[in-house]
Parts: sequence; C-alpha cells; structure tokens
Amino acid sequence: MIPMWMSELSERSGVAVPTIKFYLREGLLPPGEATGATRARYGEEHVRRLRLIRALVHIAGMSLERVRQVLAAMDEEPTLDAAIGMAHTELSPEPASPPSEVSRTRVARLVTGARWRVDPDGRHGEALASALDAMDAAGQPISDKTLATYVDATAAIAKADLDSMGDRTRDGAAAFAVIGTLLTEPVMVALRRMAQENLARRRLS
Amino acid sequence: MIPMWMSELSERSGVAVPTIKFYLREGLLPPGEATGATRARYGEEHVRRLRLIRALVHIAGMSLERVRQVLAAMDEEPTLDAAIGMAHTELSPEPASPPSEVSRTRVARLVTGARWRVDPDGRHGEALASALDAMDAAGQPISDKTLATYVDATAAIAKADLDSMGDRTRDGAAAFAVIGTLLTEPVMVALRRMAQENLARRRLS
Repeated sequence: MIPMWMSELSERSGVAVPTIKFYLREGLLPPGEATGATRARYGEEHVRRLRLIRALVHIAGMSLERVRQVLAAMDEEPTLDAAIGMAHTELSPEPASPPSEVSRTRVARLVTGARWRVDPDGRHGEALASALDAMDAAGQPISDKTLATYVDATAAIAKADLDSMGDRTRDGAAAFAVIGTLLTEPVMVALRRMAQENLARRRLS
Repeated sequence: MIPMWMSELSERSGVAVPTIKFYLREGLLPPGEATGATRARYGEEHVRRLRLIRALVHIAGMSLERVRQVLAAMDEEPTLDAAIGMAHTELSPEPASPPSEVSRTRVARLVTGARWRVDPDGRHGEALASALDAMDAAGQPISDKTLATYVDATAAIAKADLDSMGDRTRDGAAAFAVIGTLLTEPVMVALRRMAQENLARRRLS
C-alpha cells in the first residue's frame, strides 16, 4: 500500500485535517513516518484508527478521555477478540444498581445453556440481568420459553453481523463492532416494533 | 368480578391512593360507581387503566399531558389492534430529520416482502429508514441479506411476545405492548451483544 499525505488521510478517514493534527498532538493517533521537518506520510493503519476514533466519538458519544482509555486498553489486549471485546464492552454503561441474585443466576444458566463463551457477570450479562429485574418489577416477567426465542433470534442476528465483517485488523474489527452494534440496534428495535404491530393486527382485529 | 374500594384498587394497581385521586380529578381515570356522597366502588377496568397509565408514565417516561392524549386517541380507535397500535406508535419519537427516499423505498420493499400489515411510512418505518441512513452515512451499510436475517429474527421475537400475552382487553393489551416493548428491548440488545462477543471469541481468537 502506498503511503499518503495528510490531505489524503483526511479524505479517506472523513476526519478534518485540524482534527487529525489535534489527535496526533494528543497521542490518540501514532505519528506518521517523517519525511522532513514538517511533513510525514501515513498508512492504512492511520485510516483505520481514525475511523475507530470517529466511531467512538460520534456514534458511541464517548469523551476524548474515554476514547484514550479504550484505545490504550485495546492496544494492551493480546488477542484480536479480546481487543474487540474491550471496545464493545465499553458501549454498555454499568447498571445503576447491581442486578438481583435471581436474575444473575438466570443469566448464568442461559449462557451455559447456549454454550456462549462470555462472562455472565461481565458488562453485557449485568445489563441483561438488570433488564430481567425490570420486567419482574413491572409485573410482566419474561418466561424461559420466550427468553430462549430471544437467544436464538439474537444469535442469528449476531452471526449475520459477523459474516458481513470484512476488515479483520484490530482497529478495523473494533470499529466494525462499535458502529455495527450501535447503529444496528435501532434497526432491530424498529423491526421488532413493526413485526409486533403486524401480528397484533392479524390476531386481534 | 366483585367491585373494590379505593384501598384495594391501590393495592392491585400499585398506584398510591393520592395519585389515584389525582388521576380521577384529571379525568385520566373514569369515575367509579358512587355508593354514597364520598365513596365509590371500582372494577377490573380501573385496575387495568391504572396499570397502563403507570406503564406510560414510569416506563415510557411520558408526561401526564401526553398520557392524556394517548389514552384519548386510544379510546377513539374502533378496533383493539388499532388502539394498541396507537399506544405503541407513541413510543417512537419522530425522527429529527426525514429519512432519505432511498431508505424509505427499501423499507417499503421490505414490508411488502415480509407481507407485514404495517404502514411503511408510519413512525416505526420512518425510524427504520433513518437507522438505515445512519449506517450508510457511517460507511457500513447493511446488506439486503443481513437485513433479511434481522426481519426473520425480529418476527420470531414478536411472535413469542404475542404468544405470552394473556389479557386481551383494550387497556390490558396496550399496557402489555408498552411494557413488553420497552422493557424487552434492553433484553434483546444485551443478548445480541453477548452473542456477538461469543462469536468474535470463537472465530477470531
């Protein structure tokens, strides 16, 4: 791949030149290869990192300080999947209050049953347990049978997501995970609402 | 069904007596059957309406003014499914800017293909078209194939949701739709994130 000047880097990444200079000063973007006192050339890894920063800032809404932490933590992870998991986990806020033991146990059983290689007490597992608690509190608990349908359906979606991933570099895959997760959630939510209305119309009218 | 005093209505609905009195004064809750100058008896329809108001206020986060509009519009709808659809539609905010024609057309095709009896230009369809626009803008458009997987998966979830609905009265079904939709969205989101991490771990580590 031919290295590029900053103007091309800006065009390819969609990030304005002054912003790129700011990220370089802040150490979020590694320096290019110096070709003189004031000029440097950049590679594909710079394009990918800029796209990832852009996704974290503009789509995930993270502060620059948080982006710095996520990138540093990602860069320290030894494997690709751990690096992506790191960026991904940062998308879920910590629950306001810890979930109940009952829901935690239910999530742990579900993870074992689905043979998912995830920590049931991790950020997403906690979010799930808290969501189950909220349904219990509203007097509308979700049954094991319904939950099993959710597991199968979301697994099918996740598989389609991963199948469509092209770039398997660390930054490329992390950007894909962040953008894909956050931007397809509204797609999933809107489709489910439409599917519900369709069925309500067919069954109840 | 035996009618009940206000204390029992409060217990059954989970709404405090002063709040019930406020809803009565505001006309959100129809009056009970008067049994004297200051006493009245209430029925199951009062329990259901209170649960629906509670769901709209506490779970959907609507203002009382908006709740009043939703209830009035619901009560005017001639059929049960239209009444539920009304409450359901109110959960989706109008998009900040109208979606592109390209995405609108894509949604219309999708609705026709899935034979869904929904208005592709309705609130949920607009939300979907806007979500597709956001993915295009992020340089990560969703393919027709992936979108088809989303359609099948969300239809399976919606079917499981409706299968678990017990109460088919107007207010009962509307409360079920509001609570079910809003509280199970975090379940769906958390599960998808877990499923993605599982697959990333299996395929990329």
